Amino acid sequence: MKRAKGMRDFLPPQMMQREKVFSVLAETYREFGFQPLETPALELLSTLRAKSGEEIAGQLFEIRDSDFGMRFDLTVPLSRVAANTSFPKPFKRYQIGPVWRREEPQKGRFREFWQADADIIGSSSMRVEAELLEMASTALRRLGLCDFKILLNNRRILNSLLDHFGISEKRGGIFRTLDKIDKIGYASACKSLEPLLGESAGEIMPLFNLEGTNEEKLAEFGKYSPEGTEEVRQILELFPDFSFEPTLVRGLGYYSGPVFEFKGTGEYSGSFAGGGRYDGLLELYGKGAPAAGVSLGVERILLLLGENMEKKTYTDVFVATLPGQYQKGIEVAKELRKERIPAETDLMGRSLKKQLDYARSLRIPWVMVIGEKEAEKNQVTLRDMDAGEEETLPIAKAIMKIRRI
Amino acid sequence: MKRAKGMRDFLPPQMMQREKVFSVLAETYREFGFQPLETPALELLSTLRAKSGEEIAGQLFEIRDSDFGMRFDLTVPLSRVAANTSFPKPFKRYQIGPVWRREEPQKGRFREFWQADADIIGSSSMRVEAELLEMASTALRRLGLCDFKILLNNRRILNSLLDHFGISEKRGGIFRTLDKIDKIGYASACKSLEPLLGESAGEIMPLFNLEGTNEEKLAEFGKYSPEGTEEVRQILELFPDFSFEPTLVRGLGYYSGPVFEFKGTGEYSGSFAGGGRYDGLLELYGKGAPAAGVSLGVERILLLLGENMEKKTYTDVFVATLPGQYQKGIEVAKELRKERIPAETDLMGRSLKKQLDYARSLRIPWVMVIGEKEAEKNQVTLRDMDAGEEETLPIAKAIMKIRRI
Repeated sequence: MKRAKGMRDFLPPQMMQREKVFSVLAETYREFGFQPLETPALELLSTLRAKSGEEIAGQLFEIRDSDFGMRFDLTVPLSRVAANTSFPKPFKRYQIGPVWRREEPQKGRFREFWQADADIIGSSSMRVEAELLEMASTALRRLGLCDFKILLNNRRILNSLLDHFGISEKRGGIFRTLDKIDKIGYASACKSLEPLLGESAGEIMPLFNLEGTNEEKLAEFGKYSPEGTEEVRQILELFPDFSFEPTLVRGLGYYSGPVFEFKGTGEYSGSFAGGGRYDGLLELYGKGAPAAGVSLGVERILLLLGENMEKKTYTDVFVATLPGQYQKGIEVAKELRKERIPAETDLMGRSLKKQLDYARSLRIPWVMVIGEKEAEKNQVTLRDMDAGEEETLPIAKAIMKIRRI
Repeated sequence: MKRAKGMRDFLPPQMMQREKVFSVLAETYREFGFQPLETPALELLSTLRAKSGEEIAGQLFEIRDSDFGMRFDLTVPLSRVAANTSFPKPFKRYQIGPVWRREEPQKGRFREFWQADADIIGSSSMRVEAELLEMASTALRRLGLCDFKILLNNRRILNSLLDHFGISEKRGGIFRTLDKIDKIGYASACKSLEPLLGESAGEIMPLFNLEGTNEEKLAEFGKYSPEGTEEVRQILELFPDFSFEPTLVRGLGYYSGPVFEFKGTGEYSGSFAGGGRYDGLLELYGKGAPAAGVSLGVERILLLLGENMEKKTYTDVFVATLPGQYQKGIEVAKELRKERIPAETDLMGRSLKKQLDYARSLRIPWVMVIGEKEAEKNQVTLRDMDAGEEETLPIAKAIMKIRRI
């Protein structure tokens, strides 16, 4: 029987790699003071639709004969919880888990995929943005991804700009085009934007093609949005390692202030992670509060790290037994586990040769062989499977050797 | 806005307890050589229905306009994967994750709940059962649950018994009643069973009320099922700590050989965990193979451990800063995190008093205060929040004190 379309099974070697990535992310989040929160897979459709936007609303997995749907991200559930619970402020939570979208599956795009989010509720200070940028940078570097640049913008700057030129009502179309500018290029964006910008095009378009330092670019935009640029400067003071990028939009959803994106600068030029401020979102679900967050693209990161199927098991020792010695084998395995060394015994009653084949097929690094002679003397024959060397010694000594003490 | 019915949010203090339980289980499983496997939330309805039984088929969350449903356990997905993938045998996997059933929510019963399963595919040896019993016992004891007894039976014994008396076709009804015997009592079970057992009742019923040692009881049943009792004896030789319980049935699903259950002997007399052999299941999904597994009742275990909301955060140090010192605070937090000490800074720009209130509300054990004087000398004032004592010292020394070196 087949798997459902767009779904995946993760076999042990893949899981070992995924668990490593997840644990690096969780540890990094914890080191920055974020706490775990878990929300259910199913939410009321009204909750999901309140801020999903048209595109995602069409991608919901809805439950038959009910008003439930599967979550499509981790931000909407967080907003529901945070708006209805009282926490000491700021409330800093992380969640790593699957989300579901009913899109047509493609290479690298699945209907069940993982997100790793960290959000801070309750502070309007730009210290929040500086911390999120620092944390995401740390996490990516720890995962071995170092070739990236950070693009930062502020929705307030874009909004003030459109206000200034009296073209706010065209925001949707303008943002949609800006959002694609890195794909379609500046020239093509000009062509699409000119009819929307109207007579202001000549003044506005050069702003989206500025060269120079962050400070030089901010000075230009400061004329239209002193508050928006001041926020960017505050972040710059605490976290200087980003490029101010006035064309960055990040979707059309709930963002209200600074937005940012981590983009590859090596072979991969897409996005690793992104996020921003969404001060208005919580109010939709209960009590309002300022909020901002970052989301790491777990699938993308795993794809970039490449499949490392080298490690096939967590087991360190296979306890092989000759006929009549299985009970002794169980005892030895018990001693190993007492020392927290993962150990297996032969559950099939196989020949020694077949037991060794099994250990080899799983790349278990050590085998302890127990025959009558070893059992009598309370010893084991310890075999280093890589080196192919073996020696007979007391169990305690064998444990020390495995631990390289 | 509200949560969907039967679903739960787990707030940070609950999550910290849950993560601890999950990690004890995962570590124990790994120490016995089990590997992680993850299957998707959604499966084809045909896969789910193939072996769900009538009761559970009515409890499926089905996806609108599709042939998908949400998994109701972790055994069916495992069987689909194992029957369609080639692994070195035996294949030992564990999975800890949520499953979904559309039941009416009650106290202690939810529509999303967690299971922690470990299964062994590919061996018909009773060594498998002995290992599963040993592993589940170890895991429960590590979680602090020691008041339990293990009941073991073999479906083959029950089947042979009914064959012997020529009443196999009444198996369903007989098993359903036996399954309830510990709730309804022997006398009441007799009344329900007599019409089903017919003229054999007088011979059969006393068998379900035997007193004596495992060996004595096995001797009685051996007359009807030499193979079934021999399997139980093989387990007894490797793992003696169970009571042979001829009335144990464990549901009506896919079990084909030994079945077992861990039951509380203290205040709680319900089940902690259970499992058994299901040699026939994989064939339904592709290639057949012998299989057996154990499932730990995570929700039950968490309920029994009681809510321990003492720990409110993983954060060890709050870095409090006086005006103008926030940048220095970030640096200090960075040094702490380099040492893998979780640390937070003040993201709100609050007064020192309010910063301390925040640290106190989350029960963060240490606060480092940085004012102008401290910053100049590259020191911090380290405050032990429990003892209420503080002292000013270099950062490296403060770190050593936190680590109690």
